[in-house]
Amino acid sequence: MKIALAQLNYQIGNFELNTKKIIDHIAKGKEQGADLVVFAELAVCGYPARDFLEFEEFVDLCEQSAQEIAKHTTGIACIIGLPVRNHLIAGKDLYNAAYFIEDGTVKAVVKKALLPNYDVFDEYRYFEPATEFSCIEFKGQKIALTICEDLWNINNNPMYVSHPMEELITQQPDIMINIAASPFSYLHDDERVEVLAKNASQYQLPLLYVNQIGAQTEIIFDGGSMAFDKDGTLLDEMAYFKEDFKIYNFEAGKLQGLTQIDHQIVPDIEQIHDALILGIQDYFQKSGFKQAVLGLSGGIDSAIVCALACRALGPENVMAVLMPSKYSTGHSIQDAMDLVNNIGCMHEVIAIKEAADAFDKMLAPAFHNLPFNIAEENIQARVRGILVMAMSNKFGYIVLNTSNKSECAVGYGTLYGDMCGAIGVIGDVYKTQIYQLARFINKDGVVIPENSVVKPPSAELRPDQKDSDSLPDYGQLDKILYQYVELKKSSKAIIEQGFDEALVRKILKMVNTAEFKRYQTPPILRVSPKAFGMGRRMPIVGKYLS
Amino acid sequence: MKIALAQLNYQIGNFELNTKKIIDHIAKGKEQGADLVVFAELAVCGYPARDFLEFEEFVDLCEQSAQEIAKHTTGIACIIGLPVRNHLIAGKDLYNAAYFIEDGTVKAVVKKALLPNYDVFDEYRYFEPATEFSCIEFKGQKIALTICEDLWNINNNPMYVSHPMEELITQQPDIMINIAASPFSYLHDDERVEVLAKNASQYQLPLLYVNQIGAQTEIIFDGGSMAFDKDGTLLDEMAYFKEDFKIYNFEAGKLQGLTQIDHQIVPDIEQIHDALILGIQDYFQKSGFKQAVLGLSGGIDSAIVCALACRALGPENVMAVLMPSKYSTGHSIQDAMDLVNNIGCMHEVIAIKEAADAFDKMLAPAFHNLPFNIAEENIQARVRGILVMAMSNKFGYIVLNTSNKSECAVGYGTLYGDMCGAIGVIGDVYKTQIYQLARFINKDGVVIPENSVVKPPSAELRPDQKDSDSLPDYGQLDKILYQYVELKKSSKAIIEQGFDEALVRKILKMVNTAEFKRYQTPPILRVSPKAFGMGRRMPIVGKYLS
Repeated sequence: MKIALAQLNYQIGNFELNTKKIIDHIAKGKEQGADLVVFAELAVCGYPARDFLEFEEFVDLCEQSAQEIAKHTTGIACIIGLPVRNHLIAGKDLYNAAYFIEDGTVKAVVKKALLPNYDVFDEYRYFEPATEFSCIEFKGQKIALTICEDLWNINNNPMYVSHPMEELITQQPDIMINIAASPFSYLHDDERVEVLAKNASQYQLPLLYVNQIGAQTEIIFDGGSMAFDKDGTLLDEMAYFKEDFKIYNFEAGKLQGLTQIDHQIVPDIEQIHDALILGIQDYFQKSGFKQAVLGLSGGIDSAIVCALACRALGPENVMAVLMPSKYSTGHSIQDAMDLVNNIGCMHEVIAIKEAADAFDKMLAPAFHNLPFNIAEENIQARVRGILVMAMSNKFGYIVLNTSNKSECAVGYGTLYGDMCGAIGVIGDVYKTQIYQLARFINKDGVVIPENSVVKPPSAELRPDQKDSDSLPDYGQLDKILYQYVELKKSSKAIIEQGFDEALVRKILKMVNTAEFKRYQTPPILRVSPKAFGMGRRMPIVGKYLS
Repeated sequence: MKIALAQLNYQIGNFELNTKKIIDHIAKGKEQGADLVVFAELAVCGYPARDFLEFEEFVDLCEQSAQEIAKHTTGIACIIGLPVRNHLIAGKDLYNAAYFIEDGTVKAVVKKALLPNYDVFDEYRYFEPATEFSCIEFKGQKIALTICEDLWNINNNPMYVSHPMEELITQQPDIMINIAASPFSYLHDDERVEVLAKNASQYQLPLLYVNQIGAQTEIIFDGGSMAFDKDGTLLDEMAYFKEDFKIYNFEAGKLQGLTQIDHQIVPDIEQIHDALILGIQDYFQKSGFKQAVLGLSGGIDSAIVCALACRALGPENVMAVLMPSKYSTGHSIQDAMDLVNNIGCMHEVIAIKEAADAFDKMLAPAFHNLPFNIAEENIQARVRGILVMAMSNKFGYIVLNTSNKSECAVGYGTLYGDMCGAIGVIGDVYKTQIYQLARFINKDGVVIPENSVVKPPSAELRPDQKDSDSLPDYGQLDKILYQYVELKKSSKAIIEQGFDEALVRKILKMVNTAEFKRYQTPPILRVSPKAFGMGRRMPIVGKYLS
């Protein structure tokens, strides 16, 4: 039996596009002699469709698409992921399911049992977990088909009481297939190989795994579909961050003609680089926009975002706005211009003095000669926000936000100023990783000017300001943030690792009191196991470490 | 047996405050001869604690608080809600639970089985559902204790397969107690009475129900704790939007000395009014702020927010900033000043011309004489945003957002301009309800100037602009929005009700394409069954009705 895995980029709610892609790849499979073409979890509607799933019409469109797809399966079979209705009296209205379609007919419906409901996942919001399990019989073989999380319950402290493979194995399947919507993080690909290999060897079955690719706003799917031998040996690994399509020959209980390969080890920073480029591309392409605008300060963060945007959209589609203030140093403009020249994007220079002065003058009667403080600093950042948004409104450019994760974490940024934008490009990348990203971008020649990389970071909102006036050293800061944000360690546990107690308490307090700011930031491209945004849900008005 | 219900206002993560409140009310119960004092769901840590629950230290603090509370139960018993650890190998790490504490000792732990995971609720993100059920034995009586949603599974299409009361009833309890964190919506109080009455009559048991009050950022708990006779008769109803404490005498299978009362019928708009005032008060009090600032345009929306803020915080704590533009009509300033004079709050007048002109001039070279469009309109709105934020930064005032639900829905507002603020006061109130709210506020004398109520709504961002230039009549708009947002009807179903097809499609498209704006709006005080914000989760980059 020849089984094709189709690793595709879907769009949420774009039934026309998704259906066409699926039908085209069934045709491709047929041409190449496949018996079965396998598509990803919820391929028909895109993942995550969120509360669209609460609309009857949306679910109807999924079923209609499946019927349309079925018409194109003469002489072939396919597996497609889609939501299906629960017709029992009790329980949630939908299942996260897959249709096995053969020769124009839906022959089997497989339902997901383990519904991830942590981090960015909300599956139990919509779906009832499956409680019955059956293998699919096809061409004399029994396929144990599971959906993503269904295979993720094999550690020593399982999150779920149910265990789909333990049920399916009693039916003596010949092969396992898992269809997934498994998002990227720079740690997740290794974990995935491990979990899948463990399943294969535990059940002594070959395993085919198909993921999807593409960014859905902040969530990025990286692909990397795989084939395993029954002892858990990795036999094949498909492309990362790209669509891919491969056919595997399953005969005599074995995936034929393949030998052991090593999992592609790609440095974290390169993975992040590729993920961010896909994230930018898909945000624009899927929302129908072509051109981006951003504020370019001469600092490293906006330089990185500009470079990534140029790689994603082409330099001719990126507008960099240089907005010097009276506190900007001469080298800032020079560093920004060096980048523009290195990269060839559009640019404008608009000094902010006139508007900033107008605000100072207009506010003078109300401010009663109170001393310069954060109010005046923020006015400058917000004037820049207005300018970038004005360029967006006038020309239809989409604003890229340039805040990094360290700043987002501690609230070192101005709401409606430098925190504006449609999408946060590097909001899940710590400052220390930003430097690595600059080195990576520069590996084949200077793009990010060396001076942007080596100079001390500064917001330049008052004379001689440095980030280090307000923030601890980024090396220390990022390590403590990682313990708290990614690893969810308590202050006590972090201090026990040898970090300064006062520093830890100060940083955790900064993080917790900045929730009100993060609530209003743009969606952030997720590249870590714990990004700010919908995967991290904190009270705003609370009193814990704050 | 005398059972006290303590309906209190908790703060998330404020263990000191919550523990003290609980201990004080145990003492109060003891003084008044109570045998048992009952507190609400997750009273110890506050509800919803969200991802704080993922921190070990946070859960430890809950347990420590419970041990502290236990020390104050000599000669008395209490029921407190708190998260407890799941010590089984499989399943999520926590239960949403209650301790029954008697005479210094935790005598029973009751766990919640039905975990709401829709709208604003995320309980399955943290908690494992209970599968075992036992009544509590106390003073010769058996108490069937359930937690909130556990009683909400009695309709004909239950959301859950499990049914806690069906298990508990087999143990022949004498009384039901339900502890809750049941948020307000202007429809929810009636529904609650109905569901609880149905439980009492179905199981032929008296029922005591205790809710909490207070706002936790956007979610408002309204109290309204209740007592029912075993035939479902309502016997008592505690205060709404206020703390309350009452003792009931349960003897011989009956709540003694009470007779049937009617559920307090309060007009929706009065409930919304009271809820918003509590929402503002608690946002400020719990985050440690006293004073508010808002832009006052002379229109009805900002007038309402100003009036509510003055009622919540006192007019001496509210700063209204009047920011006329060259397109502001003379009556706008007059209407705004009339409100300030009616209400006695602080005010400043800051014309925006100078800054708006500065932006036009600064942008002229980049704009290349392109015609006036949304860019210039938004500059004005954003200049106002900067001014209000500057007043906030200079004086520590918290910015109140004044966008209404109709505007939020269709994206009729400027990001970083009029959409700025720390909390959205009327973002869950449709424009047609705004008028009702104005009449209600004016019922004992004019507060909102009549002209603000009767004049046609306008953003005044270009000459002679009216909302009706861009938006359908609010009467029609709000009806269609209600069908789509609250009732989740499909376009087809809405059109079948007789609304114009083109209009329905236009409005639904406006709603769906405004997701990127709503993602960045402040949290919105929730008063309806479906508010924008964390209870409505939509893809941003998608393609459905957009």
